Amino acid sequence: MTTLLSADELEARLRDVGTRRYHNLHPFHRLLHDGKLDLGQVQAWALNRYYYQAMIPVKDSSILARMDEPELRRVWRQRIIDHDGHHEGEGGIARWLKLTDGLGLDRHAVTSLRNLLPATRFAVDAYVHFVREKSLLEAIASSLTEMFSPGIIGERVAGMLKNYDFVSRETLAYFENRLTEAPRDADFALDYVKRHARTPEQQEAAIRALEFKCDVLWVQLDALYFAYVDPKMAYPGAFAPKETR
Amino acid sequence: MTTLLSADELEARLRDVGTRRYHNLHPFHRLLHDGKLDLGQVQAWALNRYYYQAMIPVKDSSILARMDEPELRRVWRQRIIDHDGHHEGEGGIARWLKLTDGLGLDRHAVTSLRNLLPATRFAVDAYVHFVREKSLLEAIASSLTEMFSPGIIGERVAGMLKNYDFVSRETLAYFENRLTEAPRDADFALDYVKRHARTPEQQEAAIRALEFKCDVLWVQLDALYFAYVDPKMAYPGAFAPKETR
Repeated sequence: MTTLLSADELEARLRDVGTRRYHNLHPFHRLLHDGKLDLGQVQAWALNRYYYQAMIPVKDSSILARMDEPELRRVWRQRIIDHDGHHEGEGGIARWLKLTDGLGLDRHAVTSLRNLLPATRFAVDAYVHFVREKSLLEAIASSLTEMFSPGIIGERVAGMLKNYDFVSRETLAYFENRLTEAPRDADFALDYVKRHARTPEQQEAAIRALEFKCDVLWVQLDALYFAYVDPKMAYPGAFAPKETR
Repeated sequence: MTTLLSADELEARLRDVGTRRYHNLHPFHRLLHDGKLDLGQVQAWALNRYYYQAMIPVKDSSILARMDEPELRRVWRQRIIDHDGHHEGEGGIARWLKLTDGLGLDRHAVTSLRNLLPATRFAVDAYVHFVREKSLLEAIASSLTEMFSPGIIGERVAGMLKNYDFVSRETLAYFENRLTEAPRDADFALDYVKRHARTPEQQEAAIRALEFKCDVLWVQLDALYFAYVDPKMAYPGAFAPKETR
């Protein structure tokens, strides 16, 4: 990219990344919301994605630690509060554990991470390292997958409630909160990126950062598909559903 | 683990990790050395593994930077010399590029990393971060997959020479050098780990570090299998073999 895009052109390019690479396009997502997975496969999804959820406030704390302006930090810290809550049992991570509880997973088996797929760990850790090592602009741009999340959450909640008798509106409470939190967060981050990507190189870096983040989400579903939908070989140490398939 | 192992018991436990989790057990490795892959699939393997090869001296430089003793650094620096060579065109990375050349891949397409699978990048980067963030003992223990590499190299070279007319002893020169370098490196690292893992916790950490490294190698083959042997969907941006399959 050699020409400077207008703010609106940049936004269009960023939205186009989601159209091409967001994980709602992944076959595992379609199986999940179409009700084509069994309980063990949904458990594997929830257990692995727990690590992503648990590391989001670590990721956001790493970004917070790089912000020089109190004004910015005052906005960004809300993301950490949303995930960690004010008291034990509150916040996004606790709500995710209600989902894993509701799916019949032992809580310690989830939080100990002992059955995590290695690819989940590598992808999530790559995200945390990315926001520590790249520019603040890129770190913020990598959060912009939240622009696309209301759509996937809508599909996921409707599809899962309709198709699985082992989930309820209560166990899916995590997603309901995200429907208001994600657009607020995405609006702020998008505005920041549009104002601070002032050269063609910075605009390109912001687009690449969002592509990277799409990869982080996509690789997690690849790993689930390969391990639990169409396995070639049991992965040593990975979560093994109890019921037979 | 609550009891202290003898040095020999620790070695046996480390070797057992390889027996259970080294990537010679992966179905992609078997396809590769049994001649069951086509040129495009072998290209995908060589192109993705290039990133692993290219980052090995970065990984070893990170370890070198954490060694306080000249005596240790004098030994460890040889690994960097082996991979980078003394002049352009020499060393392990250059030998790997002879392999990608020999397979008909454009050199810039390889070194630009533009067609790398995201999971390859995440796994390799996880290795580099691991040796920077964990203890020096764990960083050194994670290199111990080299204890198992002469076996896999033997299988790979013999199998590939026999089964593929697009490889030659010359294009596989990388592996010939590794047959002498890897055992020398592994002997040193194993001796270091046996002498410095002095508590049950340190011994456990060394074993976990080697398991982690097996994961790093395994995940790379998972990603190749999922993308090129049994693909569910083309990965946006990944290497696409030119010939039809």
